[in-house]
Parts: sequence; C-alpha cells; structure tokens
Amino acid sequence: LNDAAGTTVTVALDGRGVERGTATLIAGARKAAADGIALRVFGDPEALSELAELPAVDVIEAPDEIRNDEEPVAAVRRKKDASIVRAAADVAEGNSQAVVSAGPTGATMTAALFALRRISGVRRPALALQLSVPGREGPPTVMLDVGANAEARSHDLVQFAFVGASFSRAVLGVAEPRVALLSVGEEASKGTQNVIEAHDQLADMDHVNFIGNVEGRDLLSGAADVVVTDGFTGNVTLKTLEGTAKAVASAVGQAARSNPMAMAGGLLLRPALGGLRRQMNPDNTGGAILLGLRGVAVVGHGSSGADGVANAVRLAARAVRERAVERTATLLEEAGAMRGEPT
Amino acid sequence: LNDAAGTTVTVALDGRGVERGTATLIAGARKAAADGIALRVFGDPEALSELAELPAVDVIEAPDEIRNDEEPVAAVRRKKDASIVRAAADVAEGNSQAVVSAGPTGATMTAALFALRRISGVRRPALALQLSVPGREGPPTVMLDVGANAEARSHDLVQFAFVGASFSRAVLGVAEPRVALLSVGEEASKGTQNVIEAHDQLADMDHVNFIGNVEGRDLLSGAADVVVTDGFTGNVTLKTLEGTAKAVASAVGQAARSNPMAMAGGLLLRPALGGLRRQMNPDNTGGAILLGLRGVAVVGHGSSGADGVANAVRLAARAVRERAVERTATLLEEAGAMRGEPT
Repeated sequence: LNDAAGTTVTVALDGRGVERGTATLIAGARKAAADGIALRVFGDPEALSELAELPAVDVIEAPDEIRNDEEPVAAVRRKKDASIVRAAADVAEGNSQAVVSAGPTGATMTAALFALRRISGVRRPALALQLSVPGREGPPTVMLDVGANAEARSHDLVQFAFVGASFSRAVLGVAEPRVALLSVGEEASKGTQNVIEAHDQLADMDHVNFIGNVEGRDLLSGAADVVVTDGFTGNVTLKTLEGTAKAVASAVGQAARSNPMAMAGGLLLRPALGGLRRQMNPDNTGGAILLGLRGVAVVGHGSSGADGVANAVRLAARAVRERAVERTATLLEEAGAMRGEPT
Repeated sequence: LNDAAGTTVTVALDGRGVERGTATLIAGARKAAADGIALRVFGDPEALSELAELPAVDVIEAPDEIRNDEEPVAAVRRKKDASIVRAAADVAEGNSQAVVSAGPTGATMTAALFALRRISGVRRPALALQLSVPGREGPPTVMLDVGANAEARSHDLVQFAFVGASFSRAVLGVAEPRVALLSVGEEASKGTQNVIEAHDQLADMDHVNFIGNVEGRDLLSGAADVVVTDGFTGNVTLKTLEGTAKAVASAVGQAARSNPMAMAGGLLLRPALGGLRRQMNPDNTGGAILLGLRGVAVVGHGSSGADGVANAVRLAARAVRERAVERTATLLEEAGAMRGEPT
C-alpha cells in the first residue's frame, strides 16, 4: 500500500459535511487508516477526538463549515477556516498529497480548483465517475464530466477525453482505454455542434484510442472505457441512471411482496442478488475524482456510508501512488491537446 | 372510439420500415382497425394485400422507401413516392387526420414537418415520449424533446413546456399538469445558460403550472407530469433510462440463474414480475409524438411489435379525437408563448 518509493500516502480529509454524521466519517477514516493511508483530518477536534488517537492520523482544527446551500465560489473565498478550504490548502502547502471530502460537491470542487490549480493548458477540470456494468466483472467505465461545468466547448471535450483516458490507464489499469463521445447516434454528424466538432478533432488525434460516439444505452454495456460529455448532460445522465436503477430495483422488491408465492421466491432469490446490490451501491466507487488539476481531489458521494468515505480516501491514495496527475500532464503535452483553442 | 362528432378517425400509416417485418405491421394494423380506427396504409400493395381485405382499411401504393442510413432531409425532398412521404402528404391533403410510422425517426419527423407545417409561431417541433413509473399506476410523465432538435434555445424550451402541458392535458387527461425543466439541481441558477433563462421565463408565465427544475432521478419518480429538455439531453437521457432498466433487469435474471435455490426463487417470483415487464415494454406507449405541428404525427418505437404499431395508431387517433393540435394552438396564443424571440 505504499507507493513505488515506499513512502506512505497522506490524504487531507474534510472532517465535516458528511450527511450521515461524524460517526460515519470516523468509521470511514478508521477503515482507510487501517489500510496504511496517513490522514490529516480537518474539523472540530472534539468531535474527531477518537481519530486523533490513531497512530497515522492527525486532527487539525478547522472551525468553519461550508453548507450545501451556500454559493461555492463566494463561500470558499470568504471562509478561509472552513474544513474543506483548509484541507485543500494542506495539499498546496505540501503536507498532504490529496484532498477528499464527502461534503458539498460545489465547495469541494471550488476549494480544490483554487488550491491545486489546473494542469498547464487545461481550461476546465472535469468530474469523473466510475460506472460498473451490473452483474459483470472488469474495470468500470469512466464517465466525465458529471458536473464540474454546465457547458463544454469542443476543445474542453477533447481535453476530457485525454484526462479520462489517462485516469483509466493510470488508476484503473486499462492498457489502451477505448474513449467515446456520448451522443445521439453513432454517426460523426450526430449531436450538438460542440460534440460534432469534438468528434472531428478526436478522430484526427494520436495518443488516444477514440472509438467514436456511443449512446446513453452504452453507459452500462461496457462498450467504452471512457465516456466523454459535458457536465450538464453527464450530471443529468448520471442521476437518470441512478434513479432508474433504484426504481427498477424497488419495483422488483414491490413485486416480491405482492403475494405469498412471490414472497417465497424473493426470499430464495435474495442471496443471489447480494452481489448485484453491493455492486450497485454508490459507496463502492468512492465517489468522483476531479481531473485536470495539479493535485488529486476526490468528492465523496453525498450519502456516503463509512465504506463510501473509506473508498473515497483509497481512490485518492491510489491516484497519488499511480502518479495519475503527472501521467496526465505528460500525455496532454505529448498529444498537444493542451494547446488552447483560439478564442 | 369515435370522436365527439361521432365520425371515425382516419390514420395514414407508413406500410414500410418496421424492423420486425411486414407481418408485424399487418398484425398491428389489424389490432388498430379492430378498435374502429380507419387506416390508409402506404406501401407495397402486394405485401399488404391482407390488409386491403379489411373493411375500414385502404392500401395505397407507395413504391419507394427511405432507409435508416439516408440523410432524412435530402431523402424526403427527393423521394416523393416514399411511403412515409406519401402518408404525411395524405394528412396535408385532408384524406387522413394523422400520420404514423414505425420506420426511421428522422425521415418520419422530416416528412411530417414538411407536410404538416408548424403551428404559427412555433420555431421547433419537439418529440414527446411517455414514461411510466415502474410499479405505479397513474398517468405517465411526458418527456420532451427526446430528439427532434439537438439544440434548443431558452425560447424553444418555453414552447416545449406549453406543447407538452397541452398534450398531457388533452391526451392524458391530467387536469393541471406539473411542468418542470430538467436540470442539474433544483435552484433556478443551476444548469446551462439556456435552461437558466427558460426557468426565469417560465416562472413569470401564467397558463402553465411550472414547478421548477427536476433532476434525472425524477424522471421515474412521478415528481412532474411534463419534463422539458433539449433534444440532445432528452435523447441521451431516454436511452440511458432504457439501457439501465434493461441492464438491471438482466442482472436480476442472471442472478436468478446462478444457483438452484435462486432459480426456484426466480420461478416463484416470475408471475408477480409480469406486470412490471409489461409496463416496461416500450410497445406500451406507442412511441413518440411530434408536438408543435398543425397535425398529428406519431413515430413508433424502432423495434415495435404488433402491439407497438397498434398503440402508435391508437395514440395518434386519441390525439385527433381530443383535438390536441387545436388546443395546443389556443394555449400558445393565450399564453403569448408563440411570440418569437428577437433573433
């Protein structure tokens, strides 16, 4: 669990903002610490005192908090002592190598963007999420952007393709990730103007294995390793996917309570569904990672349980160990994809 | 099944392009005709000879066909004798009151747009689809645009809200449809620039029950009766929804084959799942309806079975009987939503 040089990875963890409460955060931090990841946890020392007793965990006071209903940019600028702002700054100051929060997504992204800054030439960072094919093994599909930016120009989409491919390769171990654009048809002429232009640009590029467009139905088919879209479409799509999976699962559960025979069937089937239930649990992926920055930042799932918190920290540590940021910067430079478009 | 005046509705049906073959089309047309809907079917008289024997069905020769791989606008312009072009023209000529096709979506939309033209002031027609909440009764949620236009300006989104609400009221019988914008958060400030502007405009309007933004997870929650979005997002979202439902259902099926106990459970549960399976079958909704035109046009689901064809014809007939087009035009006029934006 150490990196190539044998040194321990240190993660700055936001000690506030977990929806399910501090006990959940503490339980998650314990699990991650048990894996040999060093933690610096920012928040209320009293509430976090249990963690301070662990050998590789430091608790640092951060008296302020950014709530979900605050405008992120203004709040991050104003609240220098908010736990997420202090945690992100800790990485910039060189005390930690990655920042993780299961608090408000907007504040986490903003604090990370301000503290870690963008890789030279990257105009917009993107939020990337791992999607597993239900009932299938193998590396997950990376979808990005799932919400860092509401709009994306063709040049942004091209950069997302490169940072997404780099993440898939470095962190998920996919040797030659198949990169696709999310659109409304396979043909190069299908989609918005930005998607059509991005398609043309990617088709001409080396250093990325661009397989063309995929459609919404391909997100869970394993047809691509990286699916690129703008943050509006990505966020709507992601929530549609989560909502549909939940609605279908709950309708199956409802059917299994509809009569005694179905109830018996449901009970017999239950153990076999355990794996699917675990796989569909958002706690598994550890949340989303912000790509395109000069450091590692992970945004935990809003309703993270202890495993969700632990997996978010593990994802951040893995990205540090695998040198995801450095490898992304190198790829962008080699590909020339970091040259700004004329604006 | 007759309209208020007691006259029969006549539907022009494209007799070509059904993926599952002409036998499926014939079986579907038979079902619709049995409901008292008069049909004029355009295609190959020999292949459709069975239908010509039915009392309220005319078969009209249309020697040409538009295939899925043809560019719709060019093909519709060139092939005056294509079955979908002739069927759409039949409505314009006053022989039929609605056009239905289970052939290529692009060609059907283009032929309908050219032949039926837009309601005065409507800039873009929108394709609307009905979504049912799995395991729940009650009127479906109407989502539009699911693919007529890749991009939509705020003014287009506002018009979609009105034509969608009008459809929900007239055809689905929802007295005061709750209309929402699909976005990435509930707040009025969330989304693309076009969505934010449309939110502002709708919030100020009478004649529509605008409830604000909904997210992707709300498409199957019944939170809104009409969900408005651009055709790119709508199409990607719809296919994500279909793909996710299929992936989860298939993973449940896979689990039910994984061991003898699970297999027994699956067999016992099977009858209770029948209703859900029927509800999730896209044949049920009869496909999508093109709104904003001066006539009724329905695009059947690509892989329609006989029930899909029949339900597409039934949907078209219902829209005619309920005077959906006239009521939409009146609503737009009253609301002033048909005034073009300054361009």
